[in-house]
Amino acid sequence: MCGVAACPQYCWISKWRWDICPSAGGSMSNMYGMVLARYKAVPDSKMKGLSGLPPLVAFTSEDGHYSVKKAAHWLGIGTENVVAVKTDSHGRMMPSRLTCCIQQAIAEGKKPFFVSATAGTTVLGAFDPLEQIADICHQYGLWLHVDACWGGTLMLSKKHCHCLKGLERADSVAWNPHKMLGAPLQCALFLTKEKGLMHHCNSASASYLFQQDKFYDVSFDTGDKSVQCGRKVDAFKLWLMWKAHGSNGFESLINNAMDASRYFKEAIQVQPGFRLVLDEFECTNVCFWFIPPSLRGQEENDEWWNKIHTVAPKIKERLILSGTLMIGYQPLPHKGLRNFFRFVTSCHPPPTYADMDHVWQEIERLGADLW
Amino acid sequence: MCGVAACPQYCWISKWRWDICPSAGGSMSNMYGMVLARYKAVPDSKMKGLSGLPPLVAFTSEDGHYSVKKAAHWLGIGTENVVAVKTDSHGRMMPSRLTCCIQQAIAEGKKPFFVSATAGTTVLGAFDPLEQIADICHQYGLWLHVDACWGGTLMLSKKHCHCLKGLERADSVAWNPHKMLGAPLQCALFLTKEKGLMHHCNSASASYLFQQDKFYDVSFDTGDKSVQCGRKVDAFKLWLMWKAHGSNGFESLINNAMDASRYFKEAIQVQPGFRLVLDEFECTNVCFWFIPPSLRGQEENDEWWNKIHTVAPKIKERLILSGTLMIGYQPLPHKGLRNFFRFVTSCHPPPTYADMDHVWQEIERLGADLW
Repeated sequence: MCGVAACPQYCWISKWRWDICPSAGGSMSNMYGMVLARYKAVPDSKMKGLSGLPPLVAFTSEDGHYSVKKAAHWLGIGTENVVAVKTDSHGRMMPSRLTCCIQQAIAEGKKPFFVSATAGTTVLGAFDPLEQIADICHQYGLWLHVDACWGGTLMLSKKHCHCLKGLERADSVAWNPHKMLGAPLQCALFLTKEKGLMHHCNSASASYLFQQDKFYDVSFDTGDKSVQCGRKVDAFKLWLMWKAHGSNGFESLINNAMDASRYFKEAIQVQPGFRLVLDEFECTNVCFWFIPPSLRGQEENDEWWNKIHTVAPKIKERLILSGTLMIGYQPLPHKGLRNFFRFVTSCHPPPTYADMDHVWQEIERLGADLW
Repeated sequence: MCGVAACPQYCWISKWRWDICPSAGGSMSNMYGMVLARYKAVPDSKMKGLSGLPPLVAFTSEDGHYSVKKAAHWLGIGTENVVAVKTDSHGRMMPSRLTCCIQQAIAEGKKPFFVSATAGTTVLGAFDPLEQIADICHQYGLWLHVDACWGGTLMLSKKHCHCLKGLERADSVAWNPHKMLGAPLQCALFLTKEKGLMHHCNSASASYLFQQDKFYDVSFDTGDKSVQCGRKVDAFKLWLMWKAHGSNGFESLINNAMDASRYFKEAIQVQPGFRLVLDEFECTNVCFWFIPPSLRGQEENDEWWNKIHTVAPKIKERLILSGTLMIGYQPLPHKGLRNFFRFVTSCHPPPTYADMDHVWQEIERLGADLW
């Protein structure tokens, strides 16, 4: 695994520094992070449960992944005890707001224990300021988990790994090679810094499965640090990809995906009818509205935005029925944004400029007569 | 899915009666069962967590799978609040003991909420008496989950489905076609009876992923009832197998696996040096000791058993190094049983009598000179 860390500056995937466990996906990895944080904060909870404890509080940004809430539900923390920290206009967690939220939870007699920062948010592709968040976690003694499921792949590119500055200070990280890197589903990794903690936290030591009287070094039997029993050898996919592409190959694929995304953004910037949600995107996300000719140049009041809100779903319907393209859309209610397209590029198959042109041209073709 | 229920007597996999969700394995399915039970017992826990609640108590048998304890840890119940109910000599949960355990928990001011019965225990292949356990769950208002990961496949055989009598009364069931049925890892199903409960319990309603303004019936978008986000289409494996084999084909494969297991048991019964752990096994499990010639006919005192305890690990080492066979072994400490072999047959590849002979002959060949 060490070899995939192409970026010497942030060589975070190193067998000497991280304990790695494949998981069934990013949601599960985020749950792993929360479980470890809880075990670290209240080790007794493994045996005794949460019944007698004060409410534990977790923090993530309002642009973070919904799985943090699901984890809080499953783990008995409660979704109300996940505080959604406000983000800036680009979707990045605001450190000053995080501090306020932590102080407020303490003032309410609750016990903060976990911060999930995001490196590559789902919609806008934003990277939370990890250095500043790590400082705050250090100050208040909180576990720093980084949900880098989407953006973690940039680590493998010298050109782009600066986005993840501060990641090396995380206590745990979720990274999905099955997202931007294009590994076949499922290939998700959970990484944590403290060696042995996963085993202490998760082991059940079932003597009928994890025998210690074997003829080889049983420290290689790592199954009991997981919460799963039988598992696919998903790590093999990443290993095979790495053997096939090499670190330089990974880097080229990533740089190409980022370049295609930049090309796409610049292409639609000069097309009438396309409007970007943000001027700049940190990851390969490009979010935009398509404004049909009939709606251009009009006053952009509520009625106008109500119409725009229906454009993306309608064009998506037409794209699916015509079979030429699938592309996601969504609103972002906490930012007051109505339905817009979210277009992302990934490493496989390597996107070309022609692919990019196809995307906006199809949207233009199928949206021209709306509404 | 309905079509795989070959056994009309216990047609439990029916789209009209069960809500089905593929999961990442049996451990996760058992956790799904416990989460639903907890949500049913204390719906507020989803938002508020377990902090202010009395301790919740779960019950499983001492022969049940360790994942029930792991689930209790993750879900904030605590491993101490999983009561291991005593089993009979065959490894089946004793209903009278379950009742005692429930009453004791109530007397301690705790809140029983969940019983995980096992249909096909890992080691001995025992089937808990589901009818009687269902009666007790009904009496005390507890959720009945059945961990049928291993033995659930017998449902598809008219000849053997009697083992699962009472399964239709469960609130939830875990069944792994990737175990006895031989589907490729991973193919695990979680089933629950109350339609919509999974969605209510697990949904986060993230508007950026689960849009409601689509042109088709969004009730087919079932992703939000799961705790995972991106998932493999594991159900496809079972569907493909069923299309290839048909219900009758499944039944033949199961009957063949059970028959091969019976043949193996009868074969070693007449071989000197082989001793069965039980006279009868309900599933395809056959558990046995191999007694090397040098240890036969001696007084079976502690020292003798200490030697026997080392035989299975040594033979397993030799089997692995010779590359001819892999077979599991384990002790069963709560029954005072030292290391013994656990041999199971499954549907794929279909086991033959020659395969069965190979197994005991290899063990005999490599164990003859011990100790």
